[in-house]
Amino acid sequence: MEAGVGMPSSGLSERRKELLKEYEGYKSQGLKLDMSRGKPGSDQLDLSMALFNNIENLISEDGIDCRNYGALDGICEAKRFFASIFNLSEDEIFIGGNSSLNLMYDLISKAFIHGLNGFEKPWGKLEKVKFLCPSPGYDRHFAITEHFGVEMITIPMTAEGPDMDMVEEMVSKDSDIKGIWCIPMYSNPTGITYSDNVVRRLAAMETAAEDFIIIWDNAYAFHHLYDTPDTLLDLIGECRRAGHPNRTYMFSSTSKITFPGAGISMMASSPENIACLKKQIAIQTIGFNKINQLLHVRFLKDAEQLKAHMKKHAEILRPKFEAVLDILDRNLAGKNIAHWHKPRGGYFISLNVMKGCARRVVELAKAAGVILTPAGATFPYRNDPDDTNIRIAPTYPPLHELKKAIEILCVCVELAALERLV
Amino acid sequence: MEAGVGMPSSGLSERRKELLKEYEGYKSQGLKLDMSRGKPGSDQLDLSMALFNNIENLISEDGIDCRNYGALDGICEAKRFFASIFNLSEDEIFIGGNSSLNLMYDLISKAFIHGLNGFEKPWGKLEKVKFLCPSPGYDRHFAITEHFGVEMITIPMTAEGPDMDMVEEMVSKDSDIKGIWCIPMYSNPTGITYSDNVVRRLAAMETAAEDFIIIWDNAYAFHHLYDTPDTLLDLIGECRRAGHPNRTYMFSSTSKITFPGAGISMMASSPENIACLKKQIAIQTIGFNKINQLLHVRFLKDAEQLKAHMKKHAEILRPKFEAVLDILDRNLAGKNIAHWHKPRGGYFISLNVMKGCARRVVELAKAAGVILTPAGATFPYRNDPDDTNIRIAPTYPPLHELKKAIEILCVCVELAALERLV
Repeated sequence: MEAGVGMPSSGLSERRKELLKEYEGYKSQGLKLDMSRGKPGSDQLDLSMALFNNIENLISEDGIDCRNYGALDGICEAKRFFASIFNLSEDEIFIGGNSSLNLMYDLISKAFIHGLNGFEKPWGKLEKVKFLCPSPGYDRHFAITEHFGVEMITIPMTAEGPDMDMVEEMVSKDSDIKGIWCIPMYSNPTGITYSDNVVRRLAAMETAAEDFIIIWDNAYAFHHLYDTPDTLLDLIGECRRAGHPNRTYMFSSTSKITFPGAGISMMASSPENIACLKKQIAIQTIGFNKINQLLHVRFLKDAEQLKAHMKKHAEILRPKFEAVLDILDRNLAGKNIAHWHKPRGGYFISLNVMKGCARRVVELAKAAGVILTPAGATFPYRNDPDDTNIRIAPTYPPLHELKKAIEILCVCVELAALERLV
Repeated sequence: MEAGVGMPSSGLSERRKELLKEYEGYKSQGLKLDMSRGKPGSDQLDLSMALFNNIENLISEDGIDCRNYGALDGICEAKRFFASIFNLSEDEIFIGGNSSLNLMYDLISKAFIHGLNGFEKPWGKLEKVKFLCPSPGYDRHFAITEHFGVEMITIPMTAEGPDMDMVEEMVSKDSDIKGIWCIPMYSNPTGITYSDNVVRRLAAMETAAEDFIIIWDNAYAFHHLYDTPDTLLDLIGECRRAGHPNRTYMFSSTSKITFPGAGISMMASSPENIACLKKQIAIQTIGFNKINQLLHVRFLKDAEQLKAHMKKHAEILRPKFEAVLDILDRNLAGKNIAHWHKPRGGYFISLNVMKGCARRVVELAKAAGVILTPAGATFPYRNDPDDTNIRIAPTYPPLHELKKAIEILCVCVELAALERLV
C-alpha cells in the first residue's frame, strides 16, 4: 500500500500551521497512550480462562504425573499437538517453558559455548561470527545477537521476504556468516509472509559455512485476521528435501494464543538436532512446567479447536487493524510522505515515513502522550539507515484509545515531513 | 551415627551363605523398586492442589495482569514472599521459572560468556577455571561444571559442612579457583546443615580470585522433619558484613514445597549483583510465568502458612526416613561395615559402606530389582575415590516398598562386605 502523489508546495506552510494547532490541542489533553509493544489486550486473555477448568487429574496420557519431575522434552500429548499443527513428527519437537525467546537465546548460547549438532567448533572459539538480519525485524532478536558480539548485517525486506539475491550472494562467499533471523509468517513488523520461492531458496542455497543455521521464529503461524489466511511452506521439510536437514531450528509458542506471560513454547528441528539438544538441555534442567503443558493441550485440543480459538482473537484484533489502516488511509494516503503494508495477520503494522523523519515522528508523538516503539528499534544496532520505519502495535490499547493514538501519529508524520519540506 | 564393632571372623562364611539364600529369595520375587531420585511422592503433591483454587482474578497487587507480558524479575508479592521467608530485601530477589537448576546453569553460562558483576573478564576467556565440590554432593551440580569444562576439586564433607581448612587454604593460593557448590541445609546427600562457623568462614575467607563466587543452593531450607529444625546462618548477610557483598548467589524453589515439575524458583544476591543480572536476563526473556507466581503466593501466603504446609510434608516423610534408619540400625549397626548420618530434614540419607564396595552394592541391589542412584554419582566425574558412598532417596516409594528395598539393600551391603572379607 504505497501512498500516492504529494501535495502542492504552495499550501505547505498553511497546512503546517493547521497541523500545529491540532497537535497542540492533543498535547494539552495530557494523554498517555502506550503503543510500544505487541501485547494482546485483556479481552483476548479472557478467551483462555477455561484453560484452568481441567485441573483435577494431572496425569499425562502415558501415565506421567505432570506435577512431578521428568519428561525433559515435554509430555507426549504436547509434542503430538505441536507435531500435528505444524505437520511434523514428534521426534522433531521439544517443548519449553513460557518463552520461545528464551529457547532462542539458549540455542545461541549453546552454539557459542558448546556448539550445536554438526558444528566443527563452538562459535565462541571463532574470530568472528556474522548474522544476517532481515530488516525491519524484531528488536529482541537483534538484542540477542548483539549481546553475543555477533556482527549483524542488515538485509532489506521485500514484499515476499528477505532479499534472497543478497542473502544467497553473501552466504555463498562469507563463511563467517553463521545464521539468519527470520519471522516467516506475518513478520514482525512488516506483516508479510515469506513466499514459497523464498522458503525454497533458503532451504536450497549453498552456504560457505557448514554450521550455518536459520532461526525460524514462527511466532504468528496461526494468527490470521481473515478467513483466507496467508500460507507458509514448511521449511524443515524443504531443508530435508534440499539435502540440508539440520539447517533450521523453528520456534513457536502459545504466548499470543493463550497467555503471553504463562503459555508454553516449542522448538522444532531435525530428529538429529533435537536429540543432540536434549543431551545438552539435560544438563540444565530436569524439565519444564508440565502442568501447564497438560492444561494447554486439554484446552487447545487439536488443529480444529485451535483454529476456532484463533478466530475469536481475530474478531477482537481485526477491527483494531482495520481502524489503524483506515485512519492511515484517510490522513496520509496520496500525500507521498508515508507508505505501509496491509497485513493479513500477526501483531504489527509497519509504517514507513519520509526518509530521515522516523525519530522526529516518535519524538513528536511522545510529547503528545503517544508512546511508540523507538525509531530504529526494528534494525540491527537500533540503526535504521533511512530513519524511516515505525512499528505500530495496535493490539493492546482499547479501540477508542488506539484510534486517537493513530490520529495523533498521522499528525506527527505529516508535521515531521513538513518540517523537512518547508 | 557410626556402626559399632565387627562380627567374629569365624562365622563369616556361614553368614554369607545365609545372606545369599535371603538374597536369592528377593531376586526370585522379580521386584522393581526405584530408589534412585529425590522425588516427592504423589501424596505430597496432593497437599498443594488447592493452589489452583484462586484463578478468577489474575492481577497482581500492583496491578499487573499476570497473564500478559512483563515483570522480568517477578511480581511484587512473589519477591516479598521470598524476601520475608529468607529475611532479605526485595531488591535482593529474582523470581525464575519452574527450575532453580536452570537458574544456576544460566548463572554459570553467563559467567563464562559475558561475566558476572565485578568480573574482570568472562571465565570463558581464561586458560583454566576450577571449582570446589564438597562431596558427597549433588550430581547435577557437578554435571553443570563438567559441561563447561571446569576442573572440579573434591572437598571432603565434615559433620558441619565442607572441610574449611582445606577450602581456605586452596582459595587463598589458587586464583583459578572461581567458585564452590554448596547445599548448606540438609545437604544432598549427607543431610547435614552447615554450622555457623562454616558459614562465617565462607563469608570471610580471602580468595586469590576476585571473581570467586559461592553457589548457595538452599533447596531444602524449609524441609524439616522435626519440630526442632536445624538452623542456617544467612550467608548473604554474612558476606555483606565481611566486606564481600557480591560473593554469593543463593537459589531456592518450591519444587519440593508444591510441585517439582511446576513450582517457582528464585535467586538472591546483593542488590548490585541482581541489578546486573537483570540487565543480562532482559536479553533472554520478557519474564517468567507470573500466573504460577501469583497462584503460589496466594497458596503459600507467608512464613506461618509455609511452616504449616511443610509440616504436612514432614508427616508423610518422617515415617519413611525413620523406617530407613530403623532398618539400617537393625541390620547393619555394630557390624563395622557401614555408617550413616541421621538427617533432620531434606530428601536423602547418605550411606557409607565398606571401602571399595559401593559399586558392588548398587550392582547387587539392581540384580535384585532395587534401583539406587549409581555409586560415584555423588562425586565429581562420578568418581568416589573410596567407592564407599551410596545415596538413599527414601521419599518417592510407598512405605511398604521402601522398607522392602532397604531390607534388600542391607543384605547387599553385608554381602558385598563379606565378599571382601571371606
